[in-house]
Amino acid sequence: MKNEIGPGAGDSEVRSPPEVAWRVKDVDAAVSCAGSAVFKPLAQLADADFQASLRSKLMGQVNLVRTAMRRLRDGGSITLTSGVLSREPMPGGAAISMVNAALEGFVTGAAIELPRGLRVNVVSPPWISETLAAMKMDPKGGIPAADCAKAYVAAVEGKDRGRTIDARELARS
Amino acid sequence: MKNEIGPGAGDSEVRSPPEVAWRVKDVDAAVSCAGSAVFKPLAQLADADFQASLRSKLMGQVNLVRTAMRRLRDGGSITLTSGVLSREPMPGGAAISMVNAALEGFVTGAAIELPRGLRVNVVSPPWISETLAAMKMDPKGGIPAADCAKAYVAAVEGKDRGRTIDARELARS
Repeated sequence: MKNEIGPGAGDSEVRSPPEVAWRVKDVDAAVSCAGSAVFKPLAQLADADFQASLRSKLMGQVNLVRTAMRRLRDGGSITLTSGVLSREPMPGGAAISMVNAALEGFVTGAAIELPRGLRVNVVSPPWISETLAAMKMDPKGGIPAADCAKAYVAAVEGKDRGRTIDARELARS
Repeated sequence: MKNEIGPGAGDSEVRSPPEVAWRVKDVDAAVSCAGSAVFKPLAQLADADFQASLRSKLMGQVNLVRTAMRRLRDGGSITLTSGVLSREPMPGGAAISMVNAALEGFVTGAAIELPRGLRVNVVSPPWISETLAAMKMDPKGGIPAADCAKAYVAAVEGKDRGRTIDARELARS
């Protein structure tokens, strides 16, 4: 890719389409790994926790698609990030499961409506080994960041449309 | 079931847990078919359309779970409603695909955290024949309401937890 786009460093929330400042033109691909969702036991999740999760990780990335579909060059691609909790639950993960699954459903639906040959996919990463190590947990419970990156490369360089790409499957291949 | 619960007729939005008035006690099962989401081409979906969809069909039903998990009798069940667009997209359905998938992901995650033997599942209905007929469309594109109801009965009377129940599969069996 010739250029990198997106909101500034540390800005994890993509704003509504009219507000986003695209700093460069002639962009072929947009990749989002940004957004947060609240990890907390279901009985303790408050209205604000659900709203924050929907606003950041879900709508932040949905809004990227809404903007990028107007700005990317013909045939370009958009890649979002969900996560394995959409299908493999864990205690405390209900809001994240909800948001990750929402991203996968949105990509399924949006893919068939994108104009000009644009593609959209979502990468579902597992835990990342480096993250687990930083959290003093066993890094074997995840995959290395470099392996996870293969899923994003596959999304950008491949021909998939509307697919949820399991980063573990690509890491093994 | 001995009693029926829920918001009043025509009230399609379940409010935040503290506001919900449960009119009866000793309830064994809560079933929701309520909630709306916006059907509109992706390029025309506005911020307000996404917000309305998240607020009504998604958070309305999520809030039912949050309330019911405190009110239902031990071993009771909660059943929500998504729809086939989560996995089978159609033009104009991106926001609905998003919300339906979010409900399925939430149920996957919430199921493992419910206390007191409570269960939660989500029924994924296709088009309903009677609805298609009312819209002057071919009723053969859907299943009769009575067949769709089998999925809800299966959710309430069965032992499933965290499952997305495809109403077409049950209608065929």
